Amino acid sequence: MKTADEYRATLRDGRVVYYEGQRVPDVTAHPVLRIAVDHAALDYEMAADSRYRSLAIVPHPDGGEMSRYFAFPHTSDDLLRRMELIETSTRLGGTIVPLLKEIGTDALFALHLVAHEVDRARGTRYLDRIRTFYAYCRDRDLAMAVAQTDVKGDRSAGPSDQTHPDYYLRIVEERSDGIVVRGAKVHTSVSMNANELIVLPTRALGDRDRAYAVAFAIPIATRGLTLVVSPYGGHAVSPLEHPLSSKHRMTETLTVFDDVFVPRDRVFLQGESEQAGPLARTFVEFHRFTAVSYKLPLVDLFVGAAQLIAEYNGIERAGHVRDKITWLVAYARTLRALTRMAALDCYQGAFEIAVPDPATVNIAKLHFATQFHQAVAYLQEIAGGLLVTAPGQADWEQPATRPLLERYLGGKGVDAEARMRLLHLISDVTTSHLGGYHAVLAIHAEGSIEAEKLTIYRTAPMDRYVALARELAGIGSPGG
Amino acid sequence: MKTADEYRATLRDGRVVYYEGQRVPDVTAHPVLRIAVDHAALDYEMAADSRYRSLAIVPHPDGGEMSRYFAFPHTSDDLLRRMELIETSTRLGGTIVPLLKEIGTDALFALHLVAHEVDRARGTRYLDRIRTFYAYCRDRDLAMAVAQTDVKGDRSAGPSDQTHPDYYLRIVEERSDGIVVRGAKVHTSVSMNANELIVLPTRALGDRDRAYAVAFAIPIATRGLTLVVSPYGGHAVSPLEHPLSSKHRMTETLTVFDDVFVPRDRVFLQGESEQAGPLARTFVEFHRFTAVSYKLPLVDLFVGAAQLIAEYNGIERAGHVRDKITWLVAYARTLRALTRMAALDCYQGAFEIAVPDPATVNIAKLHFATQFHQAVAYLQEIAGGLLVTAPGQADWEQPATRPLLERYLGGKGVDAEARMRLLHLISDVTTSHLGGYHAVLAIHAEGSIEAEKLTIYRTAPMDRYVALARELAGIGSPGG
Amino acid sequence: MKTADEYRATLRDGRVVYYEGQRVPDVTAHPVLRIAVDHAALDYEMAADSRYRSLAIVPHPDGGEMSRYFAFPHTSDDLLRRMELIETSTRLGGTIVPLLKEIGTDALFALHLVAHEVDRARGTRYLDRIRTFYAYCRDRDLAMAVAQTDVKGDRSAGPSDQTHPDYYLRIVEERSDGIVVRGAKVHTSVSMNANELIVLPTRALGDRDRAYAVAFAIPIATRGLTLVVSPYGGHAVSPLEHPLSSKHRMTETLTVFDDVFVPRDRVFLQGESEQAGPLARTFVEFHRFTAVSYKLPLVDLFVGAAQLIAEYNGIERAGHVRDKITWLVAYARTLRALTRMAALDCYQGAFEIAVPDPATVNIAKLHFATQFHQAVAYLQEIAGGLLVTAPGQADWEQPATRPLLERYLGGKGVDAEARMRLLHLISDVTTSHLGGYHAVLAIHAEGSIEAEKLTIYRTAPMDRYVALARELAGIGSPGG
Amino acid sequence: MKTADEYRATLRDGRVVYYEGQRVPDVTAHPVLRIAVDHAALDYEMAADSRYRSLAIVPHPDGGEMSRYFAFPHTSDDLLRRMELIETSTRLGGTIVPLLKEIGTDALFALHLVAHEVDRARGTRYLDRIRTFYAYCRDRDLAMAVAQTDVKGDRSAGPSDQTHPDYYLRIVEERSDGIVVRGAKVHTSVSMNANELIVLPTRALGDRDRAYAVAFAIPIATRGLTLVVSPYGGHAVSPLEHPLSSKHRMTETLTVFDDVFVPRDRVFLQGESEQAGPLARTFVEFHRFTAVSYKLPLVDLFVGAAQLIAEYNGIERAGHVRDKITWLVAYARTLRALTRMAALDCYQGAFEIAVPDPATVNIAKLHFATQFHQAVAYLQEIAGGLLVTAPGQADWEQPATRPLLERYLGGKGVDAEARMRLLHLISDVTTSHLGGYHAVLAIHAEGSIEAEKLTIYRTAPMDRYVALARELAGIGSPGG
Repeated sequence: MKTADEYRATLRDGRVVYYEGQRVPDVTAHPVLRIAVDHAALDYEMAADSRYRSLAIVPHPDGGEMSRYFAFPHTSDDLLRRMELIETSTRLGGTIVPLLKEIGTDALFALHLVAHEVDRARGTRYLDRIRTFYAYCRDRDLAMAVAQTDVKGDRSAGPSDQTHPDYYLRIVEERSDGIVVRGAKVHTSVSMNANELIVLPTRALGDRDRAYAVAFAIPIATRGLTLVVSPYGGHAVSPLEHPLSSKHRMTETLTVFDDVFVPRDRVFLQGESEQAGPLARTFVEFHRFTAVSYKLPLVDLFVGAAQLIAEYNGIERAGHVRDKITWLVAYARTLRALTRMAALDCYQGAFEIAVPDPATVNIAKLHFATQFHQAVAYLQEIAGGLLVTAPGQADWEQPATRPLLERYLGGKGVDAEARMRLLHLISDVTTSHLGGYHAVLAIHAEGSIEAEKLTIYRTAPMDRYVALARELAGIGSPGG
Repeated sequence: MKTADEYRATLRDGRVVYYEGQRVPDVTAHPVLRIAVDHAALDYEMAADSRYRSLAIVPHPDGGEMSRYFAFPHTSDDLLRRMELIETSTRLGGTIVPLLKEIGTDALFALHLVAHEVDRARGTRYLDRIRTFYAYCRDRDLAMAVAQTDVKGDRSAGPSDQTHPDYYLRIVEERSDGIVVRGAKVHTSVSMNANELIVLPTRALGDRDRAYAVAFAIPIATRGLTLVVSPYGGHAVSPLEHPLSSKHRMTETLTVFDDVFVPRDRVFLQGESEQAGPLARTFVEFHRFTAVSYKLPLVDLFVGAAQLIAEYNGIERAGHVRDKITWLVAYARTLRALTRMAALDCYQGAFEIAVPDPATVNIAKLHFATQFHQAVAYLQEIAGGLLVTAPGQADWEQPATRPLLERYLGGKGVDAEARMRLLHLISDVTTSHLGGYHAVLAIHAEGSIEAEKLTIYRTAPMDRYVALARELAGIGSPGG
Repeated sequence: MKTADEYRATLRDGRVVYYEGQRVPDVTAHPVLRIAVDHAALDYEMAADSRYRSLAIVPHPDGGEMSRYFAFPHTSDDLLRRMELIETSTRLGGTIVPLLKEIGTDALFALHLVAHEVDRARGTRYLDRIRTFYAYCRDRDLAMAVAQTDVKGDRSAGPSDQTHPDYYLRIVEERSDGIVVRGAKVHTSVSMNANELIVLPTRALGDRDRAYAVAFAIPIATRGLTLVVSPYGGHAVSPLEHPLSSKHRMTETLTVFDDVFVPRDRVFLQGESEQAGPLARTFVEFHRFTAVSYKLPLVDLFVGAAQLIAEYNGIERAGHVRDKITWLVAYARTLRALTRMAALDCYQGAFEIAVPDPATVNIAKLHFATQFHQAVAYLQEIAGGLLVTAPGQADWEQPATRPLLERYLGGKGVDAEARMRLLHLISDVTTSHLGGYHAVLAIHAEGSIEAEKLTIYRTAPMDRYVALARELAGIGSPGG
Repeated sequence: MKTADEYRATLRDGRVVYYEGQRVPDVTAHPVLRIAVDHAALDYEMAADSRYRSLAIVPHPDGGEMSRYFAFPHTSDDLLRRMELIETSTRLGGTIVPLLKEIGTDALFALHLVAHEVDRARGTRYLDRIRTFYAYCRDRDLAMAVAQTDVKGDRSAGPSDQTHPDYYLRIVEERSDGIVVRGAKVHTSVSMNANELIVLPTRALGDRDRAYAVAFAIPIATRGLTLVVSPYGGHAVSPLEHPLSSKHRMTETLTVFDDVFVPRDRVFLQGESEQAGPLARTFVEFHRFTAVSYKLPLVDLFVGAAQLIAEYNGIERAGHVRDKITWLVAYARTLRALTRMAALDCYQGAFEIAVPDPATVNIAKLHFATQFHQAVAYLQEIAGGLLVTAPGQADWEQPATRPLLERYLGGKGVDAEARMRLLHLISDVTTSHLGGYHAVLAIHAEGSIEAEKLTIYRTAPMDRYVALARELAGIGSPGG
């Protein structure tokens, strides 16, 4: 098991990272990027913290210990513990998931299941490679990012029909010792501060798209790999005004593969186009369970912040305020209930891997996603206009203005400082760049709203529903 | 255990029932009311049916058998089986719950719990009476109705502040051998065809309202008790046009107590006004679990009917139709997931009675209630205007018109008859009196939407939410 | 101008009408159908009533008078007066539009506009025929129905691709003196009690569908025309329980054309398949303005009934009740504002006909349609469960039960009778067959929700919106 | 009429402004605040621009010219022109209203109306003072801010019941030549760069609150007046990443009155506590019309940006995308229709001032406010995750990364630059601080959602609605 500092040391490896137009020689030393590094290091800190050890660490099958993330879930309880670990680290991370191992192990679980199928259908030997890679990551306690979403160009066209062939990542050369890939992925979270990059296809592919059917893993410092970190939200520096985003960040990159060589034993899919869809889907199903788990602290915070600021503002007994808080409670608790039910209703796939019930996971995610903006609206409504008009940290520290703030910005039974802190917290999480980040992630991360709907439709027990309608209508069954 | 016919025989007991302005001498022989009797008899038929025996019957503690409804739930599994029994009987009942024992045992469970508290606090001996009454009902396999909602007059005023004193049921005389009560209850389901009537207070009461704090049980044929059955929906007679409501009904009565004497051993609350609220609430919490259980066939039917009529109409592949069906799937499955979770998250009260988690039950009920009308709208939208413009059964049977209907009302790969049957089913369940009944029940039955919200607010772990907000805002705890 | 009795006399003409499986020899004498006849006769009664004359009647261009419906609207004010006439007659009609001339003149206006185009493009002489037919109807003060919606079979296929060729009405023979048509229409309102039936195509057609491109008008008593009246809602007879639907009805028919001959001068489209779409659309645009006009009394009633029953129940000051009534007010007033704005923003088509702004009409209609079920839910919530559990008229008239009702069903400052009347009114309009009728009409009548959306999308000034986005993004125009 | 530079010069007057903890000697020279100054100067620039002169300028009653804002509206057309002017300047201001005269004249109109009432009721002479002040502002073409919202402390308590007496602005001394006031206002827009500050009460007051019933106007540079500008959103500097907020800003201040002396002829209310409510309300009614007018470019932008980015992403034909764009169109057009209707339905108050119909204004505002977050969600959904993960301006300018961006971030028929510009525009307006600002303003600016609901309820023609319900229910009127 690594310490947080050992983890930081692994990031000084010559990786090609650009931020705000500058090549970054050491991401752990960069004033903005280090915030994301330190945030992610939470994962290692929890493992070393006696309060969280039993949650974060499990016995290694060969003796010793390993991060719980690497443990294959076999039961509902395993999934519930994984959910609890993700929730706890996200709470410590100020509503932002660390994600150093969550997404990577989601991918590894999916790769195991799909490789098993591919090998069976095609006679390939991918499973062995994946097992080796999995053990490598596990035993070195590595941080993993996953690059899935291609840049896509015209989304109404498939990979082979784009105006240029690199709008989806593809194999440009097949060699005896490996493959060479070219293209770019977007929205790649934590790639800047991970050790390994796992690359997966983003969609189902047709026969003509064989070159695009590719999955593999490479170290971040691999030659030809360039990470352009999004500057979004990089300005948050005031602990008072941005209590969460000044301390916690996740970064995304445009991840460019400029004829990157991938050695043979790190290639997990190479041209089996019919497997691209299953791999993409299987990963996403695991990953959406991660998603709904890490959303829990955010929605719980919405309830608590709404209740507390209502009290500070003296409106906690107003009927419409109660009504909105009740709505937030139902919103949060429904998400939690559905997430737990997805674990309780898991099924066992190959290798006795417990897969959270896809229908329930997607219903949970859709519930979260489609009502998130309304939740934001209610919280903002209860908090008041000071979210965007309040004085800030420098005003608080300035001797001429601080007495004015202290005198005038108190609330019901609360001094100005606590009220300002709470207002800025709500502002950070709903009206700042972090707020925008949460809002867009609600809609787009881990698959779009429409993708969730599609899964819900596909996994519905439609035969049972239709049989009930037939029975009550007195219509015989089609074949009967 | 009774047979269905034995049950029917018990209803010929001189009870005072009015329907459509006529005194009904024998409810089992009345052309409309017998539909409700036959529907409710499902409960007894299931017990005698080998397909449902194991679900409907459990061993009696003293040997022999008894209806599962009388079994105290002690575990999540007990609650899940009770849920399954309610769901199954409602499915067989064409979306209408039989309710002969469901609501009565909800009341009995609540009476056990509250009597235990009252006896402890007040030194009374109610629990013994309830146990005796419970055994009486169980061992005779009796059907029970529950009268709770008072007529209320001006709802903004309490019982003692009404313009006349009988707007809430009250004790008008306390005698050594019992009490005399006067007043009226509304919305009393299945009273017309039950054996016993359990009477509960409808709300929390104050000190001045002692006379209104009363609970008891009496046989339906008790002198002074008059039942005025609502005529609502009594016209449905065509099996084609009203496939459900022509065969299945539940009736409600205005239930008038004209100085009814209740013997002492049947009195379960007599003036302990501080217990009226707890009793009303405890009953409702059990009963809302019954409610969400019996809603399941209805929402499942909505999905199945929407999918099947979409196929019949040839629009099942249209994007907006898929979207609406997906919405219905998520609506139905969320209700089921929350209902099951309420059972899984039960807590144990006195006598090791498993109480479904009140927060989750109410969230489930609110989810159902607040989106039901939208579900109706989507189903109606997919089905089409024929719901209210189609020819009917007589047109189908008339030789001159039947060929026209057969020729012109077919759909995609389906003949006119099946399509008409399905359309009439949807019409019955959404646009007929049954449709109106379901809609109003969604909002009002087993407690109003606002009551559900209140429970959700009250049961929220607000301390935990607020602590999270404080932690992330960097605000110390109030006492710290 | 006809009197109501003269109108009734015109209906005794041998028309072939079936109701509940029986051939009806005289629709004005039938116990159920006469309700619809009497309801529609409102149109003639208003013209004879001094309170409504100035609204209902305008000068005939050749001297004398005529119904305002026949007057071509040339200005916003003309449209507003037409709107007022429709609203007023629907209010007198207990929320049900009479529709004897509304829909027919909508069709006549559209036929004028489209015939003008067809004649110009094709050299045909349809306009003359339409003018003649228009004058014929106007000068005889005739009642007109419009048959538009075909039975359609598989809605995913066009007319020529159905499993049998008559799923859309078509020309089966072209003769020198006219045409012979076969097929069936559904949802044909007021055909049972109109004088003339105007037939229009229901959708855009392709070249292969020439036989289906047909429009014409025939008297109802034409040989080969059979009307099968829907039995939906025919049971409402109690003035107390169904205060509206016992007195007011509109009927719809399955309208079958069994090789009906249409004389040449009554044919308004014959094979010009490219004009079927424009004709269908132009009619619907006029007709949706009629629709939003006649919805106004219904939504206003919802507000008034909600407020009054809230007062009767004593809950009119509760915060959540106010909130729901406010929602209903905004719902109703937005519909009215948009309807008026559609008139104010009209454009002038050929013959200086004022066409209500299609975008605003459709936005108004969509606003009404997509929130109607929510409006129902709020009204039902405020009214309470008695909507479906209250005693009825016979109970009120029975000496044994009436005192019970009087004693127990009063409200805050109101006696039982007024409260019962109001509750039954709300029940009639939301939970009875009339309620179901209004609900389905909200979604399907005058074009579906999806059709309204399509029009809104098509009529959007997208260039202006996109130019604004380009301007603010600093992106040059495509051609610039 | 002033030029923009003359306006800037007026701001160098010694005003006490703090920003980010620093006293700002010259707001026109400050790197952040000057953005807000330049933005507001748009008002003066339009008056000097031949394209906008006829809109921005009207004849002065005494000859010469004046800003249209100062013109009293007397007709619907006057209101429509005012609306057009506000909309146009906001469009030029990148969705941010300049507000230099809009809000001030809203206050002046209201002051005229209320002073008229006060003088009549109390025999005071406020109207003369207001006329003098109005002419002073108009003839010097001054910029005016309005301070209304008090800091309020415990919002459940009135001014006199707060824990300290200054939580609402109050008169601490009445002198023969004027008054001395103490307290603080929040959310004061454009005060930093206005000339005059008009101060109004924020709520209805009781008898005990006489000292809080105060209205007046003072120059910004008045002794004792301190402005603490909110730092919210001050970091936006990249024209690419923040195309609107880097160029356009409005600032709000905590506005502190530290025993400020107001000369007698600038006092417009002094202790007439019963008039505080009417004045607050009258101002807000005018101001909400300004509000809905300036929201129009924002909602129009949402439509245009959604359509254009859908095209760039190649998803403009997807059914669900069309559906969401249609929703946005209806959202935007309904707002515009209601806003215009409020002008068309104006009534004439004293001095023939045309007051926009309060009901319609508030319905328009509520429509905008309650659906704004959903509009944001749809726009974000169509745009995609790049809103928060895209590279930025520096990456675009860096030679090493620009080719990567150009290669990979193009869309359907569009190059990377245009697509990036559009994505950043959408990001700016929905996920940046400007996005948060718009969201919170939607809910809170110009009065809260609950205040709008209250006005809608109060202005409803409830008698007419209830009379309709009575008529259709057959219930006599109360007094009849």
